Amino acid sequence: MMTRWTDSPSQKMDRFYAHEVIGRNSGCELAASLAAAIVTPAAVLAAYLNVTDTREPTVHAFVHLDRAAFLDAPKAAGPLAGLPVGIKDIADVAGMPTQCGSPIYRGHMPSGDAPVVSMIRRAGGIIAGKTVTTEFATRQPGPTTNPLNPTLTPGGSSSGSAAGVAAGMFPFAIGTQTAGSVIRPAAFCGIAALKPTFGFFPYAGIKATAWHLDTVGLFGQTVRDVAFFAEAISGHSLAVATAPEWKPRLGIMPTQAWDECSAAMMEAVDLATRRAKQQGATVEHIRVDPVFEAAYAAHFVIQDYEIACSLAYEFDRFEHLLSPILHETIRTGREITGDRYAEALQERRDARRASVGLFKDIDVLLAPSAPGAAPSGLASTGSPNLNRLGTQLGMPCVNVPGLADAAGMPLGIQILGPIGADALVLGAAAWLEDVLNG
Amino acid sequence: MMTRWTDSPSQKMDRFYAHEVIGRNSGCELAASLAAAIVTPAAVLAAYLNVTDTREPTVHAFVHLDRAAFLDAPKAAGPLAGLPVGIKDIADVAGMPTQCGSPIYRGHMPSGDAPVVSMIRRAGGIIAGKTVTTEFATRQPGPTTNPLNPTLTPGGSSSGSAAGVAAGMFPFAIGTQTAGSVIRPAAFCGIAALKPTFGFFPYAGIKATAWHLDTVGLFGQTVRDVAFFAEAISGHSLAVATAPEWKPRLGIMPTQAWDECSAAMMEAVDLATRRAKQQGATVEHIRVDPVFEAAYAAHFVIQDYEIACSLAYEFDRFEHLLSPILHETIRTGREITGDRYAEALQERRDARRASVGLFKDIDVLLAPSAPGAAPSGLASTGSPNLNRLGTQLGMPCVNVPGLADAAGMPLGIQILGPIGADALVLGAAAWLEDVLNG
Repeated sequence: MMTRWTDSPSQKMDRFYAHEVIGRNSGCELAASLAAAIVTPAAVLAAYLNVTDTREPTVHAFVHLDRAAFLDAPKAAGPLAGLPVGIKDIADVAGMPTQCGSPIYRGHMPSGDAPVVSMIRRAGGIIAGKTVTTEFATRQPGPTTNPLNPTLTPGGSSSGSAAGVAAGMFPFAIGTQTAGSVIRPAAFCGIAALKPTFGFFPYAGIKATAWHLDTVGLFGQTVRDVAFFAEAISGHSLAVATAPEWKPRLGIMPTQAWDECSAAMMEAVDLATRRAKQQGATVEHIRVDPVFEAAYAAHFVIQDYEIACSLAYEFDRFEHLLSPILHETIRTGREITGDRYAEALQERRDARRASVGLFKDIDVLLAPSAPGAAPSGLASTGSPNLNRLGTQLGMPCVNVPGLADAAGMPLGIQILGPIGADALVLGAAAWLEDVLNG
Repeated sequence: MMTRWTDSPSQKMDRFYAHEVIGRNSGCELAASLAAAIVTPAAVLAAYLNVTDTREPTVHAFVHLDRAAFLDAPKAAGPLAGLPVGIKDIADVAGMPTQCGSPIYRGHMPSGDAPVVSMIRRAGGIIAGKTVTTEFATRQPGPTTNPLNPTLTPGGSSSGSAAGVAAGMFPFAIGTQTAGSVIRPAAFCGIAALKPTFGFFPYAGIKATAWHLDTVGLFGQTVRDVAFFAEAISGHSLAVATAPEWKPRLGIMPTQAWDECSAAMMEAVDLATRRAKQQGATVEHIRVDPVFEAAYAAHFVIQDYEIACSLAYEFDRFEHLLSPILHETIRTGREITGDRYAEALQERRDARRASVGLFKDIDVLLAPSAPGAAPSGLASTGSPNLNRLGTQLGMPCVNVPGLADAAGMPLGIQILGPIGADALVLGAAAWLEDVLNG
């Protein structure tokens, strides 16, 4: 049975604490209320701090919370003025440690803000603190729990950013995706996220994992929140404004990775597709060109080879401080030859070129965001396999919340589109979100 | 009159000092002698330190020289064992300050090595020190002079890396190119350089300028040196090994930027083309597709917009410590709208896709590396306009030394090839170098 995850008990609890000021408003609605002076920044920030104080002991979203930022009067004007933003703890924020989920960087103070953090400040955003990341944004989890059920993983590697938004501690957060580290935790926590076109936001000042793949992504409660947040930071026209009669042309391309999906996840994809059709979308089933399966396989090669390069200094000097799982990843990466890596990059380029043709007769692809709902336990953050191809191709991807399994745990649907068509993907995702929640 | 720049007086002077050990051997020849134990690392390092001590007071290649590195016994084995390497001072090296040519970062100690620096160490390379960069790798010059004539610019922004290799202080160095900051200084100093395919080496741990363009590049005395150095760091098969009978199919595509070339530069291109033909190369003249001129114009937009983002923290907190010329660049960048920037990125993508078709009937393009020889004075590092398109398209580019103007100053020829075809470009450039010096 499909239920709306927003009816789950923990959501209701969050709403109780934040109700007085935040109410049922999502981030972009609050921004509008702030701009219209219907609420004050001080009241909004106090409400978010209230939720944080209540939920943090269970959720563990923060590795560093800047309480003063919630209590100071906002300094900068802009679309995000008065709204707190969580920053994944691999991105530098002036005056806060960047610890990368690793003892190697315990207490490490950066020399300044990562450019994307400065851009958030310029838009008026309040930096709430640093959110939990897995070790160097790879596989060893941090302490964060799923806000909907603390016995489940929130997903990773952007665990704290996703969980914090889902728990209502802050309306917006940034994370990074190298395989599935933005879309997957958003799916597991039942919120929206954008993994934009590769290179959309600057990655500078953020600890690198794999430089052909690393992408800054955004979290918000709804797709419209994420679009608003992306526009506020970037200045690109992204806020969703599709004509009411517009219907997306959807493509369904079940790659090999879909074989890992649970029955509930496949049911969710079917339901989303059926409802979209009922609302006037067209749906085309697409046979998978082998070039995309090759690019999927090449993702593992590029990721592991580049992790071994990116963390060369840490491996060569602080090998004993790496987790066994990261140690193994680096060992795997170092066994890949330069020539196999070069071949994988060529497979990536071939698939990126072929991806242009994918969108001749469709607007966007619809796919599962993860193999299923959040798995049990905190020892793993789940599989990113459903996200590898979108990351490899550099395509914009949006997680659309709204569906859930029989236990009430979210099942994420992702919308993917052509490289550079971030506005289109956000528009189609917002349309689908309305359909799923309508 | 065309003469060989290697006959210039200052080159003879360098050779005098280094003669005893280094002799006329280039970097890869010395590496072979070291591997065969014909010379000792200690002797080679002492010889390079000797040259450095003699030339540095005039050339000013170093912002930080690690004398101890020249005197210690090499720690790591590998193809670069015993050979000193210069590192542009925007890249992090553990234990040395990263100052970025800016008072904002005076004395700033990084948290570790940039990944590419660790990769050089793993190949046995000795980090000689940090080389002079223009301010944040943009336009405000540092103190470096051209080793061939101290009244001329060495080019920039990788000024110290190019000048140090040309002066014989170290056989190899790394720089970065966002517009023309590797190929241009190599051309002005009469050495070889590789600006590889975008993303070939990790850019992490290096101060960003414009993230769609920033590329780590390499300097060496000859094209074979650069190929050897690139293979040593990356593990890709790159060392030049074309069959003796192989002849490149060259393309000549005179874009609008060629209008800036001096008569001597155009004569050098003609001479290179004629000699290549005489040696059996085919030469095809190619009409410029407007998509490439649009991408050229878009380079300025992307560069300035992204500089303004990359240096947002420095601008917002330390505006008074920026040079007037950088201040103006950032102001220009901040006036570009997000939507114009997004359009420029689309123009870039369109041209990158079109560039695949460019190489249907040719192997590589041959073009001027700069508008002419190094201009007079140290107030400007010269124009990067001849390099913008290659950087914008992410194509591998190699500067081929060998030609000079009537005053004996080098005129660089660049070879450009398809994205990912770094080995092919190095092979064609080495072939041309043999032709020009034969």
